[in-house]
Order: sequence, then C-alpha cells, then structure tokens
Amino acid sequence: MSKQSRENLDKKAASRRRFLQAGIAGGATLAAAATARAAGDPAITEVQDWNRYLGDGVDAAPYGQPSEFEAHVVRRDVPWLTADPVSSINFTPLHDLDGIITPNGVCFERHHGGTAIIDPAEHRLMINGLVDKQLVFTMDDLKRFPRENRVYFLECAANSGMEWRGAQLNGCQFTHGMVHCVVYTGVPLKYLLEEAGVKTNGKWVLAEGADAAAMTRSIPMEKALEDCLVAFKMNGEALRPEQGYPIRLCVPGWEGNMWVKWLRRIEVGDEPWAQREETSKYTDLLPDGTARRHTWVMDVKSVITSPSPQAPITHGRGRTVISGLAWSGNGKVTRVDVSLDGGRNWQTARLDGPSLSKALHRFYFDFDWDGSPLLIQSRAMDEAGFIQPTKNELRAVRGTNSIYHNNGIQTWHVKGDGVVENVEVS
Amino acid sequence: MSKQSRENLDKKAASRRRFLQAGIAGGATLAAAATARAAGDPAITEVQDWNRYLGDGVDAAPYGQPSEFEAHVVRRDVPWLTADPVSSINFTPLHDLDGIITPNGVCFERHHGGTAIIDPAEHRLMINGLVDKQLVFTMDDLKRFPRENRVYFLECAANSGMEWRGAQLNGCQFTHGMVHCVVYTGVPLKYLLEEAGVKTNGKWVLAEGADAAAMTRSIPMEKALEDCLVAFKMNGEALRPEQGYPIRLCVPGWEGNMWVKWLRRIEVGDEPWAQREETSKYTDLLPDGTARRHTWVMDVKSVITSPSPQAPITHGRGRTVISGLAWSGNGKVTRVDVSLDGGRNWQTARLDGPSLSKALHRFYFDFDWDGSPLLIQSRAMDEAGFIQPTKNELRAVRGTNSIYHNNGIQTWHVKGDGVVENVEVS
Repeated sequence: MSKQSRENLDKKAASRRRFLQAGIAGGATLAAAATARAAGDPAITEVQDWNRYLGDGVDAAPYGQPSEFEAHVVRRDVPWLTADPVSSINFTPLHDLDGIITPNGVCFERHHGGTAIIDPAEHRLMINGLVDKQLVFTMDDLKRFPRENRVYFLECAANSGMEWRGAQLNGCQFTHGMVHCVVYTGVPLKYLLEEAGVKTNGKWVLAEGADAAAMTRSIPMEKALEDCLVAFKMNGEALRPEQGYPIRLCVPGWEGNMWVKWLRRIEVGDEPWAQREETSKYTDLLPDGTARRHTWVMDVKSVITSPSPQAPITHGRGRTVISGLAWSGNGKVTRVDVSLDGGRNWQTARLDGPSLSKALHRFYFDFDWDGSPLLIQSRAMDEAGFIQPTKNELRAVRGTNSIYHNNGIQTWHVKGDGVVENVEVS
Repeated sequence: MSKQSRENLDKKAASRRRFLQAGIAGGATLAAAATARAAGDPAITEVQDWNRYLGDGVDAAPYGQPSEFEAHVVRRDVPWLTADPVSSINFTPLHDLDGIITPNGVCFERHHGGTAIIDPAEHRLMINGLVDKQLVFTMDDLKRFPRENRVYFLECAANSGMEWRGAQLNGCQFTHGMVHCVVYTGVPLKYLLEEAGVKTNGKWVLAEGADAAAMTRSIPMEKALEDCLVAFKMNGEALRPEQGYPIRLCVPGWEGNMWVKWLRRIEVGDEPWAQREETSKYTDLLPDGTARRHTWVMDVKSVITSPSPQAPITHGRGRTVISGLAWSGNGKVTRVDVSLDGGRNWQTARLDGPSLSKALHRFYFDFDWDGSPLLIQSRAMDEAGFIQPTKNELRAVRGTNSIYHNNGIQTWHVKGDGVVENVEVS
C-alpha cells in the first residue's frame, strides 16, 4: 500500500463518515433491489426441480456430509511451506466459517510424523516419574473419572509466522488459519495426577505422544493442575484421528504444540526436560542472538475473516457486514475495535456471545460501504488488560528472526471492486 | 420390570447407600487395576506400529472424517416406523456423544418429501402478504443484515412418541434421538420483517419450505419478532442439505416441525392458516376425542444417555459416570436429579456449563456401582418452574392417542452384568 493511496483513502474518510451518519443509503439500495426482484424474479416465478420432485430419503447418508455447493470449504496446505506432507500444516478455512465453533472436518492440523491411526482398545495412558503409584489407564478407565466440557481455541505458535517479514500470504486461511476452536470433553489432568499421587518434588510434567514423532513437551505442574484436560471428544463426537484420537492433552490458552496428540504418557519430574520442540523449535530467536524460551501463552489477537482476500465483497456498495475472530490465552476478550482506514480511526465492534475464557470470540461490525477503497483492521483487548499491537510494534521489540508468536494487527486492502488484498501499513 | 424385581432392588438400596458413603471401594478397584497394568502391559512394553512408522500427511483429507474405529457412530432409522424413506426419520446417536453440541454429520433428520438439493445461487426468500413492500432476498442480500450466533436444541414433537404406550424401543438413540443442538448463525427474522414493514393487522407469519413437501407452518408474530432466526450456518459451516441448505428457520424452544427447512417464503397474515401439519398432524388427540392445538413449546425433559441400552457398563463395578442430556423450550434447565432406584430416592446431578437458554444441557452423576441391578432415571427442572413428569402422570392427563409431546421420565434397567434395558416402572 503506497503512502499516496493511503492519503487518498484518508481524504475520503470525512465524506464516508458523513455517509455513515446518513445511514439509510445502503439499506435503500438493498431494499430497492429486493423490491425489484419481487416484481418478477424467474427464481421465484418458476417452480424449481427441488420443489417438483421428491428428494433423497434418510438412509442415504448415515454420517452426513456438506452440500456439494460447499466443496470449496476445506482445509488447505501451502505446498512450498514444508518439505514433506507428514510434517506439515493444513489450515482452517476461517474466511468461510462463522460463529466460534470450528467443524471437526476443517480443523487446522499440524503433524510432525503424520497422523497416527490408533485402535483405542490398544491404547494406554501411563503416568510415571515422581509419583507414589505408576498407573496405566485404558480408555475405559479414563471414562470412569468425572468429566467436563470446555470450549477452547487451539493456536499454533507459528500462526501468522510468515507475516513477520511483511504481507506474504493472500488469505486469512493462510495468515491466521493455524487456529481452531471446539468443545472438548475430557477428564481434568488433575484427577489423574491425584490418583497417581505427585511427590513433593514433582514440579513439571512431560506429555508424550504415541505417534511416530513421539512429540514431547514440558509443562509446569501448576498449569497441569489448573486447567489441563485429557480430552477424548471434540464437538460431541470422538476426536478425529488428525487431532489425536483416541486422546489428546488440552493446555488451554497455550501454544498448540503443547497439546500433545495421541497422548500415551505423562511423566512427573522436578525440572523441564529441554526436548527438541522446546529448544531448537518453539523458542523465539531475538535480534541479539538470544532466544525467548517457555513462551507458552498465546497473546491477544484478532483477524477480520470477511471481507478478506478469499472472501471479497461481491454485493457492491451499501450495507456490509465485517466479521472476524478474536482470542486470548489470558482469558476472555473484552473488546474488539475495527478500523476502516488503516488504524487512524477506530470504532468498537459488536462481540457476539457467549464470551468464554480461552475460546474464540466472534465479532461483527455492520456499516454502509460507499464503494471507496478501505484498509480494514481489527484490534482485540483481553481481560488481563493486553491490547493487540501493530506488527511494527512487535518487530521493534522482537525483530524478525522468529516465526513464532506474531499477534500483530492484520490489514486487508478492500478495493473499489470489492477485491481484497493482504497489505502492510506503515 | 416386574413388581417383585423392583422390591428386590429396593432392598438393596440401603446397603448400596452405605456403600456409596464408604466411597473409596470403586476408586480402589480402578487404581489397583491401573497399578497392575503398569507392571507389564504389552500395550505399553511393546512399540506399536503407529509409533514405529510415519502416519498420513496433511493432503490426505481436505475435509476430514471420523476414525475408522468410530464407524458405528451414525444416524440410524427405524425401518418399520414409516412407509417410505423420503418421509422418515434418522435418529441422533445420543448414547455415543458427549457435551451439548451435536456434530453436523449425525444430527437427527426428518423429511416430509426427501432432502431438497438446492443451488444457493438459485435460492430466494420472499416476504409477502400484509407488508408495506413485498421483498425477495438472494443469499447475498441476507448476509448483509446483522448476524447472530445462538446455540439451540431442535426437538421433533414426536420425539419419544412411541413410548406413550410403554417401553418400545431399546436405546436412547431411538427413544430420544429426534433432538439435536447446534450453534446457528443467521439473521433475526425481525430484521427482515422490519425491512418489509409489517402492517398493523399482521399478526401471524406462514413459513414455507422449497422442498417437494412445501412444508408450511403458522407462527404468531410475537414469536417471529422475539427470537426466530433465518439461519444459514450450523456449527460454523453452511447448513447441511438435510437441515435445509441454504437456509432454515429457527423457532427456538418450539417443536422441530416449525423450523421450516429450505425456507423460501414468509407470508404475513392476520390469522393462522390451518395447514396440514398443524391440523391433522402435530396436534395432540386427547381421550375425549378433542385435540390440543398450537402445542408449540417443547416441555422440560431429560434422558440418561450413558449407561443406556446401546451403551452398557463394560468396566464392571466401581466408579461409574452417569451422563445425560436435559433441555426445555421455556429457557434454561436449572437442575437435574438422578435416581438409581426407579424414582424412590433422588440425588442432584452435576450440570456442566455454560447453561444456555433453549439449548441442551449436559449433566453428570458420578457414583460407585456395587454391581447390583439399578433402575436409573433423570428428572429435569427449568427456570419457568416446570418439573419433568412421570410417563404415568402424563398419561393420566393426556391419554395415549397422541404420539406428540411425551416428556415423561425415562427408566433404564441396569442389570448386574452391565446390560441395560428400556423398562417401565409403575
């Protein structure tokens, strides 16, 4: 985005604000079109095939699938991003979704050794290390403990990682799609640790996966006892294979890599283990050559999902809904502001409820679009008092060596024809 | 369930209560088994294939599917219940689910002319009748109105209908599976009616579907303006075809038949229309030959989903989780009680949050099972003060001519070997 076009946008801001105050124009356009259609739209004056002929019966699809007209709503990878599909990423199509629940079929997935296919009858969870009793649980055993349901977002630490060095990827599926939010059903890890009896010097747990990568991460005991969940269901049904079937660990608000999938072992220890995924990976290399470690919490963040590069405005000027997502590893999102002019002026968006701690929040901003170019942004705030920073504010502190923990404000350039591009504003 | 076996159960109640007070026995059984397993379970001492070999990469399934080990978790019909699959029912597998969200793939479906397959680009919603302006909306038009997300249960008026005349169907999927609960995204119907301008004598709306049955139901204007939603998404993604893609009406807390799918027209009128589905069907024939009409609200109700006939206890005595669902068309469920002895003694279950109005509520009751037979029941109460009645209390008032609005207390007989059967208690 050049400085000149920014200035052109700014000049239009005043007249646009007057337009917004008038308010009615966009609505009038919509109503006029809808009234005109009522006069003789063939789509309503003629009887359609689906009204004329019987449809499919109930035995056709015991496990239902999306409409054929929604075949484009799928996870997508970025083939050049990783060397091999068994250690790669499939991004959530955020631009096509609404609300805060991600359907299981399109939840972001990231593997380090491919999806393990596990027979639940053969699966075990061991607790060992600094405990009074070593225990090995079957799936049946786990389902005898008190159970809870909680809505949590899961975000990869590398989400938006390519954007550290400027606008790289043209679509929120790719810039922000390493996140999903589902209802998890499981047993608080606390109950299992209590059953084993943690020794007084047990200050950390190591979570280990049963996949070919044997993913292992260190988690402080305080977090393990606070809200970690050994989950066996997502959105009501069994975990999907790519999400750790039959069980995964939930580490609410913390980076996705710690949510160990295909969980097979919890070891209790007195210090962190310094595994590969918490030393050479998932640490943040700073400009001075040192690295931030144990940067577990996912900071307050938001993104406009529509309009966005994959979801352009196709209806022309007038009433327009800006829709987006906000989240924070610190708890609840308390407010989201939206800018139409690249961050100069902000207006408060409508937060759709219920507001749940460490879950996605859906926001909307309804306005009349006069057809002039926009630079749309969203900025979230959380209950811990954090405000989402600009990318440049982040770069000034952290440099651009790391791919992790980019929670900077995202800018979309909406052109006069409704086409949307990923841009940077200075 | 004979009277004699009831008495045997009652005799056992006292000793069972003493057992429950002791509390530890079941836990000790579980811990002992888990400790024994730790000593040398081949499932953990040997390296499994999924730990030894790489799994599938991310490009394998852009729209993900459940694990092959969950192939039994599907909707099911009851072939003898209806004459033709295009006018039949596919029941939600409640016994296999948890939490309150029903995954889209297994949501109960009921059709009267089969599933209409509709191209959203060809679909229109008309508003006509007693309005200032007749309007016809495209899908694009609808998505320009302010949008909301709400979690609602949808229950067919005929859910549990076969049970009016005694225990008929062996499984909560079949006795209670005409219900689901999803997050709907849509536009309040109020906004569309305001756009058209309702005339002062407009007191009712007629909702009409575009399917081969052209389903039509009358709804009072007060309800239309209060909380009805024209929904285009469920659980974040587009409505499924069998749920009315591209749009359906949500009529929160009211019988599912009114939630017109493939919604194509809203007519405003000054009195109800007396369509087929609100006269010969979906009215409740009483013993005196008269019929209750306009019985829209779904009364407070609950069912234990596990253990249940399709989800027997397989782990033997000791710690056991009773899990179930409760809901009310009047708003929130405030309390659920559970009985282990056919309704003689009741204990309050744990309600899992958040509690959302006109949504399913999940409850749990954790107890130690001594292996003796049980008659398990659940009884829900709602914020309007209603208490779920027994089936016999209902029959005394309404007789057994109707198949609709049976919200009676369900009884499962848990046998000593963990097998569960649908029974009646007097």
